[in-house]
Amino acid sequence: MTTPAPSSIAADEFERMVAATMPIDPRFRWRVLELHRGIASVRLDYDDAFTRPGGTISGPTLFTLADLTLWAAVLSVIGMQPLTVTTQMSIHFLRRPPPAPLVARCEVLRAGRRLVHGDVRIYSEAPATPGPGLEGRGGPVCHATGSYAVPEAPATGA
Amino acid sequence: MTTPAPSSIAADEFERMVAATMPIDPRFRWRVLELHRGIASVRLDYDDAFTRPGGTISGPTLFTLADLTLWAAVLSVIGMQPLTVTTQMSIHFLRRPPPAPLVARCEVLRAGRRLVHGDVRIYSEAPATPGPGLEGRGGPVCHATGSYAVPEAPATGA
Amino acid sequence: MTTPAPSSIAADEFERMVAATMPIDPRFRWRVLELHRGIASVRLDYDDAFTRPGGTISGPTLFTLADLTLWAAVLSVIGMQPLTVTTQMSIHFLRRPPPAPLVARCEVLRAGRRLVHGDVRIYSEAPATPGPGLEGRGGPVCHATGSYAVPEAPATGA
Amino acid sequence: MTTPAPSSIAADEFERMVAATMPIDPRFRWRVLELHRGIASVRLDYDDAFTRPGGTISGPTLFTLADLTLWAAVLSVIGMQPLTVTTQMSIHFLRRPPPAPLVARCEVLRAGRRLVHGDVRIYSEAPATPGPGLEGRGGPVCHATGSYAVPEAPATGA
Repeated sequence: MTTPAPSSIAADEFERMVAATMPIDPRFRWRVLELHRGIASVRLDYDDAFTRPGGTISGPTLFTLADLTLWAAVLSVIGMQPLTVTTQMSIHFLRRPPPAPLVARCEVLRAGRRLVHGDVRIYSEAPATPGPGLEGRGGPVCHATGSYAVPEAPATGA
Repeated sequence: MTTPAPSSIAADEFERMVAATMPIDPRFRWRVLELHRGIASVRLDYDDAFTRPGGTISGPTLFTLADLTLWAAVLSVIGMQPLTVTTQMSIHFLRRPPPAPLVARCEVLRAGRRLVHGDVRIYSEAPATPGPGLEGRGGPVCHATGSYAVPEAPATGA
Repeated sequence: MTTPAPSSIAADEFERMVAATMPIDPRFRWRVLELHRGIASVRLDYDDAFTRPGGTISGPTLFTLADLTLWAAVLSVIGMQPLTVTTQMSIHFLRRPPPAPLVARCEVLRAGRRLVHGDVRIYSEAPATPGPGLEGRGGPVCHATGSYAVPEAPATGA
Repeated sequence: MTTPAPSSIAADEFERMVAATMPIDPRFRWRVLELHRGIASVRLDYDDAFTRPGGTISGPTLFTLADLTLWAAVLSVIGMQPLTVTTQMSIHFLRRPPPAPLVARCEVLRAGRRLVHGDVRIYSEAPATPGPGLEGRGGPVCHATGSYAVPEAPATGA
């Protein structure tokens, strides 16, 4: 792996844009850990608001984190274009995350003129028990892949 | 289409289970409109909390509604098993929903012993402008497909 | 459901274009059953070439049929543009199809200027045993959703 | 990255099982390049049978390669169980592969008792032009994620 190129936007610039434009549930406390061109990591503090039956974190919480991390990675390539919108996301829930902070990491695989596509993996900060390995808890709790549409020059549509 | 069979759970039973076990953002006000065996409709009141740049409703809001509607439809077939969890969801964002209530409708296509799979379409209650048709606003704003895992007899995971 | 509008292309025009441009395995014998604007049905004759362990039809066979049916439905809306390409497909294998012909039906849900999105369901022509219903064999054997990219005016890619 | 653990099956054992049980189009000439526990690489020779309009390789060809590579990776973890079947696959077509051999690489992210999930990336062996980078041709031509169902002890379906 070569050294990543610098991001087109600053991490705090992304955080401020989201805070200013999206009235996210205040219990969803997140921050960008890392931002390079095409690579973004976002950490989500744990909150009891995320639970669902089974003592695990809900699907919508994981989707929100995946979508936000993909958005940061997309803008790290194409610059601050808040009108980019998700066109498609496929999300797989692989392991039940225990009540603990999460870290999502996204890698952009293709930045076309119309669509930017990335891969997101979410990990729990809980200690890996009963142990690492493909069957154990050491791997990602969630795997998402998706695309954002780049707005056309004047603006608009799918 | 034949008359749908009765649901294995009552609509208000589902609403109460979710309210009791998931601390959803109180601005997310929803209710079940229809529940038959394998068919569920859920309506979401509009709230300014759902907006994102472009004056539209955010992807996580649509995902949350799709996931909830799929869950209701799954439980309408297998009964009240709150430990069912989403294993996978693919969501396509087709049209930008204006700020207005949404209605999601799910149809279960397959209820296996391990996985239950359904199709969800979300419509806006905003008047269809510039007009119906495949290119216009008359169709679904969002199309999601996904599966829930049925817990094994004693319990445990995917 | 209202009467569907006429297709922008004729069924045999689509069949000839595919035959002339794609050297599909000759054992893959298909024909368009129905083509309206945004709606296409394609039938695939059964061939022993499609089998896989378990006495069922392989995933790639089902994908090929789903992709072809989606393509016909997309072109029924936008006209004969052979340079349209699939950008994304999510496919769920719901029931194991026995060795018998298949019929795929696609409905376009959104025709944007850049992406056209549809839903495909594949049914087996084998008699439904042990009986219809969500758990039985009466429903679709496969459910696919996906998008084609519409070429830009001069040409080029995603 | 630590040294991968040994595969539960041998590469040529997998190749022979597929050859013996699936009557794949003889123009689809492939071989396993690498097989470790949870990791598989498969190379596909180029053949004119794979083309589609635009001088590129068809979606079904890429799907077939992705599905085969995922199957090899799944069996490298759980052993030679030919009755494993794909339950779901999401495939993104990122770049138009020119007429040249392809290499697919799969990594298993989770091996549960019922579902095994992996990520597949397909690369072209054609020289990267106009150059590497997120916008150029240096990255994967295709990104697929999917799951196989592990047969239950006595047998049967999803």
